[in-house]
Amino acid sequence: MSVTPIITLITDFGEKDYFVGSMKGVILNINPDVTIVDISHDISSQDIVEASFVLKSIYKYFPSHTIHVVVVDPGVGGRRRPILVTSSNYYFVAPDNGVLSYIYKEDQPVKVREITSEHYFMKSHGETFHGRDIFAPIAARISKGVETSHIGEEIKDYTILKLNEPKLTDKNSLHGRIIHIDKFGNMITNITNEHLYNSFGYKKEMNFKIIIKEIVITGLNNFYAEGERGVPSALINSSGHLEIYSFMNNAKKILNGAIRDEVIVRVE
Amino acid sequence: MSVTPIITLITDFGEKDYFVGSMKGVILNINPDVTIVDISHDISSQDIVEASFVLKSIYKYFPSHTIHVVVVDPGVGGRRRPILVTSSNYYFVAPDNGVLSYIYKEDQPVKVREITSEHYFMKSHGETFHGRDIFAPIAARISKGVETSHIGEEIKDYTILKLNEPKLTDKNSLHGRIIHIDKFGNMITNITNEHLYNSFGYKKEMNFKIIIKEIVITGLNNFYAEGERGVPSALINSSGHLEIYSFMNNAKKILNGAIRDEVIVRVE
Amino acid sequence: MSVTPIITLITDFGEKDYFVGSMKGVILNINPDVTIVDISHDISSQDIVEASFVLKSIYKYFPSHTIHVVVVDPGVGGRRRPILVTSSNYYFVAPDNGVLSYIYKEDQPVKVREITSEHYFMKSHGETFHGRDIFAPIAARISKGVETSHIGEEIKDYTILKLNEPKLTDKNSLHGRIIHIDKFGNMITNITNEHLYNSFGYKKEMNFKIIIKEIVITGLNNFYAEGERGVPSALINSSGHLEIYSFMNNAKKILNGAIRDEVIVRVE
Repeated sequence: MSVTPIITLITDFGEKDYFVGSMKGVILNINPDVTIVDISHDISSQDIVEASFVLKSIYKYFPSHTIHVVVVDPGVGGRRRPILVTSSNYYFVAPDNGVLSYIYKEDQPVKVREITSEHYFMKSHGETFHGRDIFAPIAARISKGVETSHIGEEIKDYTILKLNEPKLTDKNSLHGRIIHIDKFGNMITNITNEHLYNSFGYKKEMNFKIIIKEIVITGLNNFYAEGERGVPSALINSSGHLEIYSFMNNAKKILNGAIRDEVIVRVE
Repeated sequence: MSVTPIITLITDFGEKDYFVGSMKGVILNINPDVTIVDISHDISSQDIVEASFVLKSIYKYFPSHTIHVVVVDPGVGGRRRPILVTSSNYYFVAPDNGVLSYIYKEDQPVKVREITSEHYFMKSHGETFHGRDIFAPIAARISKGVETSHIGEEIKDYTILKLNEPKLTDKNSLHGRIIHIDKFGNMITNITNEHLYNSFGYKKEMNFKIIIKEIVITGLNNFYAEGERGVPSALINSSGHLEIYSFMNNAKKILNGAIRDEVIVRVE
Repeated sequence: MSVTPIITLITDFGEKDYFVGSMKGVILNINPDVTIVDISHDISSQDIVEASFVLKSIYKYFPSHTIHVVVVDPGVGGRRRPILVTSSNYYFVAPDNGVLSYIYKEDQPVKVREITSEHYFMKSHGETFHGRDIFAPIAARISKGVETSHIGEEIKDYTILKLNEPKLTDKNSLHGRIIHIDKFGNMITNITNEHLYNSFGYKKEMNFKIIIKEIVITGLNNFYAEGERGVPSALINSSGHLEIYSFMNNAKKILNGAIRDEVIVRVE
């Protein structure tokens, strides 16, 4: 356990309600010395894919042993299991609905446990708020040094989302999709610079065409200000993903863009 | 005073402005070792009832001696008094406009003091920002161990909101109201499982009908996923309140619901 | 360095995305003992003027040596320089786009350094996220006691915004503008009580007329509740600025107001 234990929170609970506040209370009541870090509480309601992308984009910047709690949980109270995951460097506490899929792939080896240690749960009415009654107290216990083996048994049949991978349709065309649209209207694809490299032996000087919604963008910029104002442009963003943007404007609005829109990269 | 003093904040100041930031600065300037916990800054503007419900839903999960600050204050600068309340387990700092009404009922005994210790106030222009100039510094002083008797004299004529209690109109019908609608569109009533028990000797097997806006819901679920998708359903939520919801949908939208809508529970 | 170093964050990154979370991770990875304080992440996209006003309104309430980080950065990756500013009491880390203009004026003496210590930067793809890759790690290093001279050389040609100052057009008329509209629709002008004093030898009893959008407001109130409900009123607010408001209503909506609207103060 690190000297200053850290618990991060990603939820779709919004910031208007009592949900996040009561989770924080439960955590601090068990471990008043933990640092709680709000990542986002504005994940679109019940959007597991969005939450998984935000988690993927932040977890590795935190100190080793940080405990990442993700509560985007459409199936709360139903048959989906609560899980505790230990990866190479971190702990994750979440419902078993696939929201940790990127972690299973990126931060191996992982061990997934079903959370069954009911003596640690908050007693409450009903079965509707596992964020407060299960995930918060389990994260707080881990931050106090409770052994993961005391939380539950290992499981092997945990849920993995089929995360869209881009496809090479011929040796010159890579087909991907928009997987995230950020606050500025920047549209992030599932195509990474590794995909470009593996597909085309990508080099800066290559003659790329990026096609989205029948618009053709030529070439990749290095930073936003290199794009022409108000025009769709592309670059490899700070997470290594191909991103469609519009300098001093909003690509989503210009292109009437949406999650799952197709994006094609062509070399000539 | 606990080892790690905690101050929580509930306001209607939003997250775009300088209001919350300057309160945090004032607190940390007086006590850099306090843990500040954001509960919500997105309470609907000047909505005392909403703030009181959020406070009721979170305060008791925090460690003893936590200082809860609530600044939803339409009458700022006018005749309403700033108050410091000590309850069985906590401190509360707020305007005397009824926002602490649930606390007076639930966490007795309470002692209410008018805050008059002006030497602790921030000097500032005008009388418009008591959050920064009165509530923040008083909370910080309490977190440093200042005696409550130094903050002001006890008062007895503090404001209590007439919080709607459900009414039994005949031995089979309990009439309540919607008192909160959460981010998911779940509609929370003022009818708790205690009300059901006291009215009907409530048991799970009972044949309940819940009537809202001429829609009849039959029976109570145990968790959200037990409801049919897109259809209005009901359960006792994690705070013990009767809640109208719609699985994978938004009950508020489906029912065109609003705060104060009538809800009737009938047993047959 | 103070015993408990504090880093505050003002950005336009929103609260839905991974931007703020990854900055927090980078900071805590370098210095797990720092206190991170969210001021606002909801600055209007790329609005340097709004960010500079929020910073002006909060920085001086924090303890000496607090490190204020401001990332509102339309020119990220382009020619604008990242800077570290030491003022009389604080540190500031930001892009050199004028967002610190009020600081240069108010908290002298200031020393401005271009951040060039690349060995402290995060290695990443592209040049699009200086918040995570430059500003966060530099702030964290300062919080650990790294000498500012190790961050970069002093520069003299830093950017200063031409912040609108009100103008006295004749000895009875002061012309200003709306520079900020808060969450409640209160419209804040660039006219301070010092401007009133210097222009007119302002006293409470003076016969002021405030003209905005052909509406005439007579006199200044001391606090919001002194205004008539729903009618445009004026007062000197908690930052010492002339503010147009409407008690229990929204001045922006009533007046169809916007940033840069002209406001005239007349004495008779």
